[in-house]
Formats: sequence, C-alpha cells, structure tokens
Amino acid sequence: MKSIEVVYSPKLLPLYDLSGKLVVVIDILRASSTICVAFETGVNKVLPVAGIDECLIFKDFDFLIAAERNAIKVPAFDMGNSPFEFQNPLLAGKNIAFTTTNGTKALKMAKAQGAKEILIGSFLNLSALCKQLEELQLDVVLLCAGWKDKYNLEDSLFAGAVAAHLSDYFAKNDDACIAAIELYEKHANNLDEIIRKSSHANRFQLLHLHTDDIAFCSQIDYTQKVPKLVGEYLVI
Amino acid sequence: MKSIEVVYSPKLLPLYDLSGKLVVVIDILRASSTICVAFETGVNKVLPVAGIDECLIFKDFDFLIAAERNAIKVPAFDMGNSPFEFQNPLLAGKNIAFTTTNGTKALKMAKAQGAKEILIGSFLNLSALCKQLEELQLDVVLLCAGWKDKYNLEDSLFAGAVAAHLSDYFAKNDDACIAAIELYEKHANNLDEIIRKSSHANRFQLLHLHTDDIAFCSQIDYTQKVPKLVGEYLVI
Repeated sequence: MKSIEVVYSPKLLPLYDLSGKLVVVIDILRASSTICVAFETGVNKVLPVAGIDECLIFKDFDFLIAAERNAIKVPAFDMGNSPFEFQNPLLAGKNIAFTTTNGTKALKMAKAQGAKEILIGSFLNLSALCKQLEELQLDVVLLCAGWKDKYNLEDSLFAGAVAAHLSDYFAKNDDACIAAIELYEKHANNLDEIIRKSSHANRFQLLHLHTDDIAFCSQIDYTQKVPKLVGEYLVI
Repeated sequence: MKSIEVVYSPKLLPLYDLSGKLVVVIDILRASSTICVAFETGVNKVLPVAGIDECLIFKDFDFLIAAERNAIKVPAFDMGNSPFEFQNPLLAGKNIAFTTTNGTKALKMAKAQGAKEILIGSFLNLSALCKQLEELQLDVVLLCAGWKDKYNLEDSLFAGAVAAHLSDYFAKNDDACIAAIELYEKHANNLDEIIRKSSHANRFQLLHLHTDDIAFCSQIDYTQKVPKLVGEYLVI
C-alpha cells in the first residue's frame, strides 16, 4: 500500500527520503494556484527560478518574467504572483520565468532531494491532481511551501484536502497527514473563511492588496491541468 | 497584548526570536509528562542531559539516572521514560539526570537560543501551567518536541489545549497556533482516542510497550507542579 506524508515546511524536507516518491508542491497563496491558472490560460512552459536577478536574465531570451517578494510584485517584471494576471489571453503559447518567496524554493528543494516526480497542486486543480496521484501509484509527499519556512494554514488545509480525497489505496498513518485531514474535514464547507483567518490573508489586508486572490484561490476545480516538472521546466 | 506562537518541531525553532519570551517545552509521550510526575512524587531536581554517555557520569555524583532512546529504556539506567517509574515514592528528595530522544533536546535548544523562561508542560499540569502563563505576562512560544524533528499529533494537540485555555489577553494570530487550537477543540472530549491514532502510539503498540502510558499521559491536572529550568536544572 502506498503512503502519504505531509511536510509542513521546506525546512523539514531534509528529514524525508524522497527517492522513488512523488512530491506535490503546495503554495496556495499564491504560486501553485497561479501556475495552475497559467496553464489553463495556455502558457507553453514555466521556468521556476530561485533569485530575482537570475529571473531577470530570461527577459533576454523571449520569456515573460514574473516575480513576487513578500507578497508584492517586483518592479520591472511583467507580472507578479496574482492569478488574475495569469488569466490574460495574451499569455497563451508564451514561456514564463517565475520566482516567488516560497513556492519556487520548495520546488527547487524537492528536485535537489531527488524526488521521482514533482507536481503542482492547488484547490484550482484538486480533482485532476488526485486522479493523477491515484493512477501513478507512487508514495506521495505533500510539501507545503509555508511562509518563510514557517507552517501556514492554507497550504496545510490543501494537503488535508488531497489526503482526504485519495482512495483507500493509500496509508495515511503520518501524524502530519492525520492532522491536515482533521483540519480540512472541519472546514471543507468554508475554505474561504478559514483561509481568511490565516496570517497570509492578514498580510494581504495590511498591504491593501490581493484580497480577491483569496476567494479565487479557494475555488475547487477551476482547471483540469496538472503542471509537472520535467527537467528544469514546468509543463503539462 | 502578548502573543502565543506554536512551533511544531525543534528544527523550526531557529526561525523564531526567543529573546524576552517564555518557552513551554512539550513532549507528551513522554518526557514532559514524566518530568511533571517526578516533581509530584517529590524529586528535588532534574538535570536534562543531551547524551547517554554524559548522563551515565552523573551516577557517580549521587544522581539517579534515567534514559530512553526510540521509546525504550536504555540498559544500565535506573529508569527509562515511563511516568509510572517516576511515581515510586523512593524518588522523593532525589536528584535525577535524564536523557530522552526528543524532549531533552528541545529543552537544550530553547536554552541555547536565549529564551527568558523555560517551563515544562503536559496534560498532567495543564491548568497550573496556564495559570502561570497568564500571570507571567510574557510572549509565549509553545515548542513541540515532535519525533526526531517531525511533527507529532500529541504535542500539537497539547499546544492547542494551552492556547485554547489562555485568556483573551493573548493574541493567537500565528497559523500554527490557530491550527493547533482547531485540532484540540475537535478532540477536547476524546484526547485519549486521538492520541491513540498517533504514530507514537503505533510505535508503542509495535513494541508491545507502554500502552498504559498513553491513558496516563492524557489525564488532565494530575499535578499543580510546573517544572522550570533554572540554570541547568529543572526545579519547582
């Protein structure tokens, strides 16, 4: 029987052996949600990049460039990290280089630690993601990007949603997985409300920014696309 | 207004500034529970020690010595880490040197990172602990010892119990704190049952060991003692 583990912070990832495992990278507010939107809009590929300077270079190579730090779009970039920016139909067919505070870092770590497969998960592609996880029949690690390596509520809630939705062919003995399922099951009918309680939502409110993004990122099954890391690129 | 933060693993502790803060070290199964029992029995002081060899030395200096690794008592030590062993009336007035897999490590880390006060918390001293936290009026960090740096259910549950019980004079904005309160409130009436689901309880069952310890460590307010680190020693 395949297992599901939940990792609440990239800082804890080195405690896990990822060999042969599938890692789902989760950054609900907002990188993993935004990446799902980008593919629904029809982008060709997304290159996750660690640093801002490194990301800027790709402007010279026919990429659109997107960057967010501390919840704010970085000046001189084409886009920040709001899902609404990635709904623009002009993005169809384009390549995007993308760097964010938490999500792209988590993705890079999962790759560096030798995960067999890496997928992008968000409420926006929940059902399609769960279907793939059932089909692929690998041990699954749900990696929450968190906020600067701290636990966050919305990523944990989504990890719980995935674990709760997966069939009985997965063992869910991991304590972090059990707690995530408990959290999700308590709030399955009011996701938007619990996410609004989170520190990240408060951060948005303090900045007078992105409050519509929360409702958007709480939508289930906006897309059937499941972005996957192949080499250095996210593709579908 | 003072704050409460929950840290789910010692591995995450370096992300937190502890200066001026009070840290509660939590290792429900079993170090923090066992230490509370020791003081209720009347021990004089407890010396937390990182390593087994280092702990053995104190046998030469009129200490009783206690050691557990991977849930099992270490041979040649006077005691392991079961609360029942520490109920022995012969322990009254004695000094104990104590090393465990997770709890003593968490305690040492909190000290090394400069916490202003360090207290020991368990369900066994919940009300007395909460009373002290309200009186001391310091920012509080609830540090879960976890299992080998991974998240665990019973420590998180207890962190939620403390946060839920504290008065409205504490801000509980931290995501980990919100999730811990949610977990506790869902299971406040069946603590024993949810702890039995935990990976640590499963570990006990596989070893055919300590299953009574779970019911014991789920008891609320067995003692009014709140052990406190003063210098290198835990005292009351």
